[in-house]
Amino acid sequence: MDPTASPIISLLSDFGLNDEYVGVMKAVLHQHCAHVRLVDISHSIPAQDIRAGAHLLSRSYSYFPKGSIHLAVVDPGVGSNRRLIVVQADDHTFVGPDNGIFSPVINASQNISVYEIQNSGLWNSTISSTFHGRDILAPVASHIAAGLPEKEVGDRVEVKTCTLLPSLHCTVSPESISGEIIYIDHFGNMCTNISKADIVSFQTGANLTIRVGEHISIRSLSNTYIEGNQKPIALFDSHNQLEIAINKCNASKLLNLRVGTPVIIKQHP
Amino acid sequence: MDPTASPIISLLSDFGLNDEYVGVMKAVLHQHCAHVRLVDISHSIPAQDIRAGAHLLSRSYSYFPKGSIHLAVVDPGVGSNRRLIVVQADDHTFVGPDNGIFSPVINASQNISVYEIQNSGLWNSTISSTFHGRDILAPVASHIAAGLPEKEVGDRVEVKTCTLLPSLHCTVSPESISGEIIYIDHFGNMCTNISKADIVSFQTGANLTIRVGEHISIRSLSNTYIEGNQKPIALFDSHNQLEIAINKCNASKLLNLRVGTPVIIKQHP
Amino acid sequence: MDPTASPIISLLSDFGLNDEYVGVMKAVLHQHCAHVRLVDISHSIPAQDIRAGAHLLSRSYSYFPKGSIHLAVVDPGVGSNRRLIVVQADDHTFVGPDNGIFSPVINASQNISVYEIQNSGLWNSTISSTFHGRDILAPVASHIAAGLPEKEVGDRVEVKTCTLLPSLHCTVSPESISGEIIYIDHFGNMCTNISKADIVSFQTGANLTIRVGEHISIRSLSNTYIEGNQKPIALFDSHNQLEIAINKCNASKLLNLRVGTPVIIKQHP
Repeated sequence: MDPTASPIISLLSDFGLNDEYVGVMKAVLHQHCAHVRLVDISHSIPAQDIRAGAHLLSRSYSYFPKGSIHLAVVDPGVGSNRRLIVVQADDHTFVGPDNGIFSPVINASQNISVYEIQNSGLWNSTISSTFHGRDILAPVASHIAAGLPEKEVGDRVEVKTCTLLPSLHCTVSPESISGEIIYIDHFGNMCTNISKADIVSFQTGANLTIRVGEHISIRSLSNTYIEGNQKPIALFDSHNQLEIAINKCNASKLLNLRVGTPVIIKQHP
Repeated sequence: MDPTASPIISLLSDFGLNDEYVGVMKAVLHQHCAHVRLVDISHSIPAQDIRAGAHLLSRSYSYFPKGSIHLAVVDPGVGSNRRLIVVQADDHTFVGPDNGIFSPVINASQNISVYEIQNSGLWNSTISSTFHGRDILAPVASHIAAGLPEKEVGDRVEVKTCTLLPSLHCTVSPESISGEIIYIDHFGNMCTNISKADIVSFQTGANLTIRVGEHISIRSLSNTYIEGNQKPIALFDSHNQLEIAINKCNASKLLNLRVGTPVIIKQHP
Repeated sequence: MDPTASPIISLLSDFGLNDEYVGVMKAVLHQHCAHVRLVDISHSIPAQDIRAGAHLLSRSYSYFPKGSIHLAVVDPGVGSNRRLIVVQADDHTFVGPDNGIFSPVINASQNISVYEIQNSGLWNSTISSTFHGRDILAPVASHIAAGLPEKEVGDRVEVKTCTLLPSLHCTVSPESISGEIIYIDHFGNMCTNISKADIVSFQTGANLTIRVGEHISIRSLSNTYIEGNQKPIALFDSHNQLEIAINKCNASKLLNLRVGTPVIIKQHP
């Protein structure tokens, strides 16, 4: 990031937009860093769904300028003794609970530093037991945006002590790829845990059959949504993950498919 | 716009706010223009509903300072060979697909320049086939905000080659005005395609009867919502379009009326 | 607030985020104050629900830097002769209708000045009868953000003439505390009008029984959400108000409880 540019803090949470929670966190972010730029990633993570939060964060952060700070508050353990951490990875800084929400970031990065948030001098003067996003995490993110070195937030801890989510990778055998639907977006498009690289490594020239759940069978890959003509299609999404969709329709609703539905790819003659 | 002021980019899309799509476009917008100001118009355009997107954009853009840039991404043809364009009209700049979303702007303006987005040197380094908002349109809007002349995005094209939506104007005859409901807002208020000017040109002193659908008949125009006392009223909205509403109620739900419902105005003795 | 920092305007309304209303107000806010920073508190106040708007505003404003401006547009009387006012209290400035939405602010503050918005030279050139947020309130807030003294908006009026909502305080007797659920958040957590101070003043050492509605009885106070183990718990929220919740569940839906449900606290041996 241009060192003269204002720092960016992205926000991701399961707070929704009905209540005052997001606005109050932003108010606190402005308290310690008047020139910060705030960008919402999403506040509609399903309540307490750490995995969905991790998924969206992992697909977003690299599009922000290097030097950006990412505040992620999906925190079902708020008020318990779970750790709050600051993660430096890939020239980005992440602030949130140590509950797995930063798993994809940690798994994908080489050069990582993690600090436990301990320095209560940075926090709000009163700490509730239910809203650490406002009382601890936003003040810490804001101080970092204003120039505070990350190591000032608390002790450095070993990366290997961080909570990681179980892997969601698909399994590739000589006979098949076995994956599942891991996220369904606003359009009803269904993201799977099968990547373009998985299919390239599997494919040997024959054609593919993609089975989704028990009843859907797709026999080719499409390039764009408009190819489907009202039938289910499989294509690579904007992160090169296999996606199941129907042109101009909500495929998830129409096909009655959910997160966790198996997606099996085989070759056919 | 004050030439020393930061440029403004407004955003309008059908992406919803659940996923990371809007946040990622904003991240990209900040990449090439650190001092840009971003303002959301709406991201809740019904999926693929170009007409609703055109309606909201046409009611919004003139309230922004001159010199603002408007990024509109309702793009069911993404990945196909539909054109992406930059439109200069009325001291505003519009960036989006050439699918009719800029129809009202083009219809309402005199001095229009249109450029096809062709200069891939401005785009992201990798182009997906499903998310040109992130990969092409946001980078182009961001470069323009940073000062790039519009003509640098690609060839100038003739305005008459741009896609226009079929007109939604009502028809005015000596006997009646025949229109319809074209948009329903968050409060359930129903916007029609009948303007104050249409009614002024029609009215000859006698009283009006406004029929909405098959069962609703309204015999006068109201000035404010509070006049209705739980009955349907007709009044001019903040753009001088005729609107059907019920004070403190969701009229659309209560009356079970939708977009496309006919609205017929006649004079009665 | 740092006098060199950009002014902050917070926004609260019942406009929802589907339509263009919020974006257009923000466009107008940028017209008269190019360096303003905008922060949404919520635009999902239930339609015309002044009390819910007042509740969220009262829980938010003090987290903003002193000198911030708060634009609150829940305005069922738009177009009628209800007053529009500017309230200065507690080093914050509030702009909105005089309908009770600023009650908690006025009740909680000592040093208050109120001005009626009368100076139409500050407004948009055309005034609709349905959208004073765009035509009057946003221009006024924006001029104040740009440095206009509050007294320039119109005559000073007496605080005691301002509309106040009926008090929502619980009643504390020697035998019991009698309150109710006043707000339900996105997680289904239910905020009551019983504060920690109310309970401290009531409690004499014996244990408490908290009855919620007709069927729920809770016999202790929890410190964090995770203590509940799928049963209803009572804890103090981040504003030290008593809250009814279920760990990782939507308590309101599961228990079928609504705003207005009685909450009675007694001591048991």
